[in-house]
Amino acid sequence: MPEYDILTLPNFRLQRGLTLPEARLAYKTYGSLNSAKSNAILYPTSYGAQHPDIDWLIGPDGILDPTRYFIIIPNMFGNGLSSSPSNLSEPFGGGRYPVFTHVDNVTAQRRLLTEVFGIEQLALAYGWSMGAQQALHWGALYPESVQRIAAVCSSARTSPHNLVFLEGLQGALTADPAWTGDRFTARPERGLRAFGRIYAGWALSQAFYRQHLYLELGYSSLEDFLIRDWEASFLRRDANNLLSMLETWKQSDISDNDRYGGDLNAALGAIQAKTLVMPASTDLYFTAEDSQAEARLIPQAQFRPIPSAWGHRAGNPSRSPVDQQFLKTAIAELLSA
Amino acid sequence: MPEYDILTLPNFRLQRGLTLPEARLAYKTYGSLNSAKSNAILYPTSYGAQHPDIDWLIGPDGILDPTRYFIIIPNMFGNGLSSSPSNLSEPFGGGRYPVFTHVDNVTAQRRLLTEVFGIEQLALAYGWSMGAQQALHWGALYPESVQRIAAVCSSARTSPHNLVFLEGLQGALTADPAWTGDRFTARPERGLRAFGRIYAGWALSQAFYRQHLYLELGYSSLEDFLIRDWEASFLRRDANNLLSMLETWKQSDISDNDRYGGDLNAALGAIQAKTLVMPASTDLYFTAEDSQAEARLIPQAQFRPIPSAWGHRAGNPSRSPVDQQFLKTAIAELLSA
Repeated sequence: MPEYDILTLPNFRLQRGLTLPEARLAYKTYGSLNSAKSNAILYPTSYGAQHPDIDWLIGPDGILDPTRYFIIIPNMFGNGLSSSPSNLSEPFGGGRYPVFTHVDNVTAQRRLLTEVFGIEQLALAYGWSMGAQQALHWGALYPESVQRIAAVCSSARTSPHNLVFLEGLQGALTADPAWTGDRFTARPERGLRAFGRIYAGWALSQAFYRQHLYLELGYSSLEDFLIRDWEASFLRRDANNLLSMLETWKQSDISDNDRYGGDLNAALGAIQAKTLVMPASTDLYFTAEDSQAEARLIPQAQFRPIPSAWGHRAGNPSRSPVDQQFLKTAIAELLSA
Repeated sequence: MPEYDILTLPNFRLQRGLTLPEARLAYKTYGSLNSAKSNAILYPTSYGAQHPDIDWLIGPDGILDPTRYFIIIPNMFGNGLSSSPSNLSEPFGGGRYPVFTHVDNVTAQRRLLTEVFGIEQLALAYGWSMGAQQALHWGALYPESVQRIAAVCSSARTSPHNLVFLEGLQGALTADPAWTGDRFTARPERGLRAFGRIYAGWALSQAFYRQHLYLELGYSSLEDFLIRDWEASFLRRDANNLLSMLETWKQSDISDNDRYGGDLNAALGAIQAKTLVMPASTDLYFTAEDSQAEARLIPQAQFRPIPSAWGHRAGNPSRSPVDQQFLKTAIAELLSA
């Protein structure tokens, strides 16, 4: 029994005008689909993550309960399991890979749901960070197919400041000697370590560091945290894949498609799902202010910030029990609504 | 007539245990010292800056008035005009340069004031960012010699989160192919451009970008702003010098010296000057919260945050008239107190 499944999509047309001869969508399911096919939850992956990185949230006592729901984690294009620079074959191998957008991600996911499982409507699209970008795209692109959305620490359109954060990451990674101008010819160790350090400053909050919460996680010092948590997180990833997902993030905009033609108000206004918009109060790049502005444009949205010192990671609180409980309560309410 | 002056200090002992055979302190003065020597203002430089970068603030209608005050800008060690990696000779040339601390900076500045000008007491030590770190060091190390301090967007001790920001900058710069492990052998163009992009995300605020204030500055796009403002700012600097000043910042702590032995409360409590602590409300690395906590420990401090969307740059508002006026009013009140 494989650890996860793969749906192959022949001649998959990408939004930006190239076609993958054989797109690969890797996914994993948890729990069972009921006969009415009404208990499906879609839980897309976040930046740099693969399904084993985010499924801690699934459990009988977890935020998503597989004894009641059929939970599907589709791996995002570029993440190394679905079609990605690291696994594409010629002519798209190596550094010459196509841009993937979230339109591509949700289009493939929609085919997975309908063609493999016969699911026409989701009980919930749940996501954190880039995962929630995909959940919001679902709400705008398939309004009738999503009953509920939980968008945790994310945005419907990447903000200018968030873009600058990503430009810093990209600049550091491509400063490495292994970067040749269009690809990496070796593992950019220095670039990956710098990438981790930059990310560490943004993904938590000033308060997290002020309170030395990294010590409570078992790290012996700030440097220990930076090396063993942040550098380690990215050293194990393929650098071309990291750049590919960064580009997806930079281009994330639920209105950037034929249906909405760049009209963000229209795209957000089209979301029919009951939507929980849950920024973290201290998130530095998906700010509560930006989330609130987007929530105002979604007809059935509730704005419910997570009060936490954990910054962006408050929305992925595998090690923060208080934040976990906050999310669990909110999602239970949403699912019973 | 030279554009600026240089004080040479033979056998200058540095805090970390090396001695410069000939330390060089570059400085520039504005206005005239009165006969009582009671109208001196010290205005040290900030990160990456040299005196021409910060003297826009000096003028008859400016924040510091040279018709009433004798204003001295001492260039920080490492900034390329005072002793720096770029101008030290063997055995300290190239990458083998000593660590400079703010104790070194203020020790040299004190000698400049007393030995060259006979100034025993400053009317004001004014600084922004790393300049204010030096002003606060003055208050703790020479309490009787400073009547007033204006510490704008800064800290007395570098906070853990601020340190992580600096780690990201350092990682990106030293990811460049020109870095050999202890020095740069050529100009690290990629690293410098990445450095600028990372800095851009931190030195302004989310609100600055949300409001597209870079367009009001005359830039045609976000990318134009990143290239022509931020990349340009660092491309013109020597990379070894940038690393040297980064180290000074990382180690900045007014209690890290023989007098206070690491006791921050004691060091802040020793400041006798009337002190204005002025963070920007949206500064992302010298946060208002951190500044407020430090201000509480300074006996005669007033905490007066600058309400602005300009983030860290609110404290260096050459292009933000409202912030300039706020600072001007505050400094005028401080000087008349």
